[in-house]
Amino acid sequence: MNTRPSHIGILGGGQLGRMLIQSAIDLNLEISVLDPDASAPCQALAHNFVQGSLTDYQAVLEFGRKCDLVTIEIENVNTKALRKLESEGKPVFPQPQVIELIQDKRLQKSFYQEQGIPTAEYVLMEHPQWSEQHAHMLPAFYKLGRAGYDGRGVHRIEGPEDFQGAPQGAGLLERQINFQKEISVIVARNKNGEVVHFPTVELSFHPQQNLVEYLFAPASITTQQDQQAQELAERVIVDLDMIGLLAVEMFVDQDGSVMVNEIAPRPHNSGHHTIEANETSQYEQHLRAILNLPLGSTRSYTAAAMVNLLGAAGYTGPAKYQGLEEVMALPGAHIHLYGKKVTKPFRKMGHVTVTGAHIDQLHERVNFIKSNLKILS
Amino acid sequence: MNTRPSHIGILGGGQLGRMLIQSAIDLNLEISVLDPDASAPCQALAHNFVQGSLTDYQAVLEFGRKCDLVTIEIENVNTKALRKLESEGKPVFPQPQVIELIQDKRLQKSFYQEQGIPTAEYVLMEHPQWSEQHAHMLPAFYKLGRAGYDGRGVHRIEGPEDFQGAPQGAGLLERQINFQKEISVIVARNKNGEVVHFPTVELSFHPQQNLVEYLFAPASITTQQDQQAQELAERVIVDLDMIGLLAVEMFVDQDGSVMVNEIAPRPHNSGHHTIEANETSQYEQHLRAILNLPLGSTRSYTAAAMVNLLGAAGYTGPAKYQGLEEVMALPGAHIHLYGKKVTKPFRKMGHVTVTGAHIDQLHERVNFIKSNLKILS
Repeated sequence: MNTRPSHIGILGGGQLGRMLIQSAIDLNLEISVLDPDASAPCQALAHNFVQGSLTDYQAVLEFGRKCDLVTIEIENVNTKALRKLESEGKPVFPQPQVIELIQDKRLQKSFYQEQGIPTAEYVLMEHPQWSEQHAHMLPAFYKLGRAGYDGRGVHRIEGPEDFQGAPQGAGLLERQINFQKEISVIVARNKNGEVVHFPTVELSFHPQQNLVEYLFAPASITTQQDQQAQELAERVIVDLDMIGLLAVEMFVDQDGSVMVNEIAPRPHNSGHHTIEANETSQYEQHLRAILNLPLGSTRSYTAAAMVNLLGAAGYTGPAKYQGLEEVMALPGAHIHLYGKKVTKPFRKMGHVTVTGAHIDQLHERVNFIKSNLKILS
Repeated sequence: MNTRPSHIGILGGGQLGRMLIQSAIDLNLEISVLDPDASAPCQALAHNFVQGSLTDYQAVLEFGRKCDLVTIEIENVNTKALRKLESEGKPVFPQPQVIELIQDKRLQKSFYQEQGIPTAEYVLMEHPQWSEQHAHMLPAFYKLGRAGYDGRGVHRIEGPEDFQGAPQGAGLLERQINFQKEISVIVARNKNGEVVHFPTVELSFHPQQNLVEYLFAPASITTQQDQQAQELAERVIVDLDMIGLLAVEMFVDQDGSVMVNEIAPRPHNSGHHTIEANETSQYEQHLRAILNLPLGSTRSYTAAAMVNLLGAAGYTGPAKYQGLEEVMALPGAHIHLYGKKVTKPFRKMGHVTVTGAHIDQLHERVNFIKSNLKILS
């Protein structure tokens, strides 16, 4: 790696950064991490851990200047500082303009429309308000353009009265899709223009929290839907002219058509299982992409499922793990804990990947994990 | 893991410790490492890295007292200090008496004889000397009882005259086995007495250096030999009453019979491929065994080969890696670099695991790696 950047700066020190570091070790990369939380999951693992705000111009600029290359594990970062770094000749992948587009749901949706990428019908609004002409879109969601993350800034609209409860600010009204399935394709692209996608996975979200609760790989969809999903994911990363790793979350509509829901320009919850189940993990693929190395084969060795370990409702405090041993005794189960000392309701504390011969066996094992492993305080 | 030891002390900070740490991250374990080399592969990764001698009583004792549990990644450690720690109630796995037996090839061979475990014919000697009555054993090796590591302290004897060149000191004369194959089975045992073995692998040693050069998993041997090898490996760990991970290197003789050659009570070069190819890696299995957690399934997802990346002959100095990209473009190839800044002839600088559908494909890929990837200075 001698001729390439060997000192990587990661904005964000959460679990995605932690797993990125585990992978970076194999390539002799030096890793610096910036995160506001002094006890972030990356704190003990990074070669250099810097406590600071990801949205502060100076903090990001000074951090970036000390690294050979800057990347992210979370989108909510100061992109003005990243643009400044780029103008100083520092490689920043994904590129600042891509992060900015993804930070703003309004820009993101407009981009899909311009590129003719299928997505849920929407209308931009300067602030949430009822209008007769949008009646046909209900039920719908009012989504803030910015600062919507993990479901925050999203409000469901069934009728005119629901606009009161909506978060104030510029956003968009988006028709609710009564999807059959939610799926995701993670795709990577390097500076040479090489583009490689991972096999399509099927996601199951937590009913209240709008968090991925578990996933199955491969997705149970038709070959045609699979192909559509992969083509869409590759189109999005190419149309964005993005370098790095992009997770493309999609709906399969009632009529079986595939449309883009949301995207994330970094390793993603829908790719955790690739550590065990694929020839190259999403974390190594992210590093290969930003370093302009050949992208790795994404072939699956086995079917797999992933269960997010969320803090149990009603428990806040030092984390206690109940049922770890039972789950570790399960064939093909691999536990990943994120090193978070304190649990909170629905906080992502870790995940379990479980492999299996067929989908029924995976369902059994997922149910076993969900009923046995609890994170209390 | 709350009720178990959560702060593990590892004696030795080399590549085995490095990969052990990569695995320990997933279990939220705090890792301290003792190693004499300030720039050891574990230096930047351990929560606490202590520079000190592994053979010094005080250094090992003081290091161990600060941890919940002590383990090793190299056998050449001060076992008096480990016995003292054990007497103070500190869990030490593998147990000091097992390490002592393995440190001394004379004790090790006597143990095989007592237990009726098949091994190459040998005779103990206080110092290397010719005697008519041992003529039938030639060609043979004179092996020092202690301080034989990676081939050091081993001398080949073809005739009486060769005894001059032999290393001085108490050792043993061992008949040379004209083996068909060298194989290895890694087996784990926890405090509950659970015993689990990994599938048998086939080793190929460097002609001069007596280092594993590459391995193939599974081994191309008969079902009966496979079964013998696995039974032998399990017998050794049970007869040693050992807790932890044990690599059992064996010969398949010309007549097809299996005998034990050497053993190592820790993660081993012959298990590197398990990171990618098996449901549980040898590193996680080592942690499960010493923490008395349920042992993991060792089922293989795929056939695999491993190539050790040795420093090229004639190059000493800051390492330069030639051909990394070509190898990273190979499907199923996964590179592990050990973070050693300086290369020396035949120094283990990293390894590549490559997976494949069948043995011929693996041979092709191994040859590709050997001819393309060079470590120069």
